[in-house]
This record gives sequence, structure tokens and C-alpha cells, in this order.
Amino acid sequence: MKNIAAGIDVGGTNTVIGMVDSDGKCWYKTSISTPGYDDAAVFVHEIARIIKEYFLSNTTSNLVGIGIGAPNGNYYNGSIEFAPNLKWKGVVPLVGLFRQHFDVPVVLTNDANAAAIGEMVYGNAKGMKNFIEITLGTGVGSGIVVDANMVYGHDGFAGEIGHAIVFPGGRVCGCGRSGCLEAYCSASGIVKTYNDLLARDGKKTEGEITPYKISKLAEKGDKTAISTYEYTGEILGLGLSNSVAHTSPEAIFIFGGIANAGELLFKPLKESFEKYLLQVYRNKISILPSGIMENDAAILGAASLVWKQ
Amino acid sequence: MKNIAAGIDVGGTNTVIGMVDSDGKCWYKTSISTPGYDDAAVFVHEIARIIKEYFLSNTTSNLVGIGIGAPNGNYYNGSIEFAPNLKWKGVVPLVGLFRQHFDVPVVLTNDANAAAIGEMVYGNAKGMKNFIEITLGTGVGSGIVVDANMVYGHDGFAGEIGHAIVFPGGRVCGCGRSGCLEAYCSASGIVKTYNDLLARDGKKTEGEITPYKISKLAEKGDKTAISTYEYTGEILGLGLSNSVAHTSPEAIFIFGGIANAGELLFKPLKESFEKYLLQVYRNKISILPSGIMENDAAILGAASLVWKQ
Repeated sequence: MKNIAAGIDVGGTNTVIGMVDSDGKCWYKTSISTPGYDDAAVFVHEIARIIKEYFLSNTTSNLVGIGIGAPNGNYYNGSIEFAPNLKWKGVVPLVGLFRQHFDVPVVLTNDANAAAIGEMVYGNAKGMKNFIEITLGTGVGSGIVVDANMVYGHDGFAGEIGHAIVFPGGRVCGCGRSGCLEAYCSASGIVKTYNDLLARDGKKTEGEITPYKISKLAEKGDKTAISTYEYTGEILGLGLSNSVAHTSPEAIFIFGGIANAGELLFKPLKESFEKYLLQVYRNKISILPSGIMENDAAILGAASLVWKQ
Repeated sequence: MKNIAAGIDVGGTNTVIGMVDSDGKCWYKTSISTPGYDDAAVFVHEIARIIKEYFLSNTTSNLVGIGIGAPNGNYYNGSIEFAPNLKWKGVVPLVGLFRQHFDVPVVLTNDANAAAIGEMVYGNAKGMKNFIEITLGTGVGSGIVVDANMVYGHDGFAGEIGHAIVFPGGRVCGCGRSGCLEAYCSASGIVKTYNDLLARDGKKTEGEITPYKISKLAEKGDKTAISTYEYTGEILGLGLSNSVAHTSPEAIFIFGGIANAGELLFKPLKESFEKYLLQVYRNKISILPSGIMENDAAILGAASLVWKQ
């Protein structure tokens, strides 16, 4: 029998379901529309049907557990709590709903924590006891690992480094406060930097702009685009130096499409990071791209929750 | 036989040695001059003599371990590393030196971590799994506890919240960088705020000023003194809200003489803290004075290292 964990990545648009073995190989993958289900119980029922069908036709495989990464997923109580980008309002007892269909362990956490555990189980943090995973995307998420354990905190909501304030009174953030790291280093933060820099020169963006398009412009030598990534790296380096002063990690991993900008982001990021670090931490902490950068990353992260149990 | 831990608090001026039982009762206390010893080995030899003499004349007591709190004390390797306020330069293998005299466990950490463990063993954090201890004094130190364990980090130097940057490009800090929390909330930071506020009104301090004197002036209604504590609380609340975004603690304890200012500090601190907190953390984290505020605090913290082992 082959042991398989079901990894489920709940996103605002799609929910991806994958069957993953302990080596991180994804044997099957499919997805359903998240907002297509008004009722979370019906949503879970449909996923349960998909999982059960897989094991009916793959009789040499054995379901050992279900791992779920979801926005505002709380590890302690197994619920999604007040996720702004999901249709289901309030507290959704996701783990409880799955337990109505399965007898195996079901584990839920937020997407950034799932990415961190994925990094530890399948990625570049194998064997590391102290590291931080930063997810750059629509938001800036983070998962903090101390002594080989995920930091969940008292309420299950630890690791919101994206909402540490780097500039008091600075840019307005989606959370309603000002100056959060996320307001500068998320996808929309990067676009805002680019537009602000253009406006300073009396110019305007033509058409829709994205961090990816800005990185392509930078590769062609566009100075505004290069300055955009320099500024992003500068602020991210400042924010991460403050995180080091908390948990003193061995490494920090950058996860998500924005990290694909490579040296364009990593060079100014590393320079800024070392500049802002307290002396005792300098020249000993690696900033690295995630080792689970391929398409299955979110699924692997979710599935890894099962193997890490 | 009564089990006793020797608690040693190494300070820049004095080193205090105390004999503490598991209930936190200090049976004997004495001190020696730290800078009176050019050689750390001779310093340890003298402390060893004091400890041995105590147990020779207290034959119903039994030494179970030695706990040491020292500036820049590293838990992992048992050394004091590059402590700016001590005479001994470079790396001093303090635990190794003690082991030449004793067969019992010897544990070293920095003073703020010792205070945090003291809070957990003897103070207000009994039974708490996730909390942060902030020490306000010459510097701003911190000890972070996650899941009932001290966070030491990869290199043993985790928990330098005093050197998280709250205002990029702000006040110059003793560490050589700018805008650290410590530059605003340490004793000298508070004095600087007071002097800056006076200067703004075209006035000057008469005689030597301290946070204690400023708190006494505030009690008498001195507006500059009140504003000084309001500003200190505002900045500390901002800094601590960022720490919450890392480890999401149940409570934060404020340790050290400056906390004796009471509501003068705690009222603006709590208001600022709640204002800067991310929504999900609001109205559920207590900010409290330390429960080990008496004279023996540092000794208890050091001794608690033994009981926590």
C-alpha cells in the first residue's frame, strides 16, 4: 500500500485538491470553484466525493490524512475565521465538516504556515530548526518555525509579519492600518510603488501593470521598473531584519511568484537586510528562494501538514 | 535535604549571588564587584568559593544547579559573547569555568531571558505557554516564550525586540543603528524625550534627571514629564504590536524599575498597543507588570533557569 495525504489549497477563486506521497510526489490533482459553493458543507461534501472516488479507483493507495491550507485557517480550532476573500462569513468549522466524511486526521492552517511546513518537509528547509517563510502575493504572509515547530501563538494567529508596521503613518494597508510591510511588498504594493515613481516623473502606466510585467520591463533596462524592485527589496529587508530580532532564524525563504524576479529582488533585499540587521546577526542568515516553487507548491504545503503531524 | 539553586546575576557593576529554593524563596544573598576581576576565571573561582562555603555551613541544603543571567549570555554554548559593558572581552566560556568547580548542571542565558523564565517559574506567567517579557532599564531587553519554551533561535540570540526598528532613520541607538525601540524606551531614551520636550519649550533640565525623577514630576502634574511618559508608552505600544504580529502571545510583562511608574506608563502604553494592533489580535492580549518586581528579581530569574531545565 502506498500512503497518500490529500492536500487541499483553498483559494479565493479555486480550491485545488491533490494526492501527495511522503516524498512530495503529486499523483493526482484537480480543482473546483471556491465561490461556486454558497454552503461550506456542500463544498466539503464535493471534495470528500472527489477524494473517495480517487481511492476507490486506486486501491493500492491508502489515505493517511487530510491537510488544508486556507486563508485565516486556525490550526487550534480547525476553523476558517472571518476570511475577507471567501464567501462563507464568520467562523467556518472546516475540520469538523471533513470529519463527518473521514476517520483520518484532518489538519488546517493558513496558507503561509502550510508553505512553511511544506518547505520543511519537501523544500529547502529540510533539517532546519529555525527559519521564516515569507509568501509574497496578493498579501504578504509568513510562517515562523522555532525549534522545528510551527509558531501558532496563543490564538493560532501567530506569524502576520506582513502586518508588522515598518513605517508608522505610512501607506494605507488593506487591513485598514498604515505602514504595514504588506502595503509595500505585496503585488499591489509593488504596483503602487511603480505608479508612484512614474507619477513623480509626470508619467502614467499604459494598460494593466503587474509585478511580473514590471520585472520584464526591468530586464529590458527600464529605470522606473528597476527602482521599483530596489525599493521593494529595501523595505522587505528592513521588515525582515526586525523579524530576525524576534526569532533569530538560520534562513528566510521567499515563496510566491514575485520571488521569480530573482536577483532583481534578491540583490537589493539582501543588501538592505544586512544594512538594517543588528550587528550580532550580520552575515549569518541566508535569504533564499523557496524550494517548492513549482505549480504544486500550495498542495504540497497542505499535504505536508499531515506528514508533519 | 532542601534543594537549592544558586542564582547568579552578572551586572556591569555588581554580581549578585543568591541561594533560592523551588518556591522562589531566597535563603542567602551576597554580591561581589564585577569589574574587580580582570580575569573571568578568578571571578568564577571567587563565586565558587562563596557557594561552597554556603553549603559547608548549611548541611541540610543541597545544591541542584547553577543558573546565570548575564549580558550577552548565550544559552547554547554557555559563553558571554562580546558584552559591551563587561571588562572581559571577546568570548568568555562562563559555564565551562563553573564546571571546573561543580558537577551540577550550569545554565547561562541573557538577563532578559532569565527574567522571562523567572516570570514563568515564580511570577505572573505561571501556566502561560505564550508570552513576552520586556525588560526596561539601561537597555530594552526581551525574552520570548512560545509553547512554554524559551525562544533562543538558531544562534542563541533570539529576543532582541529592543533593537527592532520602530522609526527607520529615527533616533540614533547605542547599537550604532537608528530608530530602535531601545532608543526611545530605555532609561536614557526616556531622559532624551524629556530633554527634547523641554528644549522645544526653550527650557533646560536642572541637575541630573532620571526616569524615576520624571515620574515623580509627573505625579506632581508637570506637563513635560507627563508628555514624556505618554510618548514612551506610545512608542512602546507600537513596538509591541509588531511583536504580537510575530508570536501572538497571551500576555506581555513589563519588568524593571521603569515599570514602577504604573499607570503613568501603562495607560498610554495600552492605548497605543490596541491602536496599532492588527484587528485579529485586539482586546485579547494583556499588558501587565512583572510579578517578580522585588529586589531579588534578577536572582530569581537566574535560579529559575535551573528549575526550568
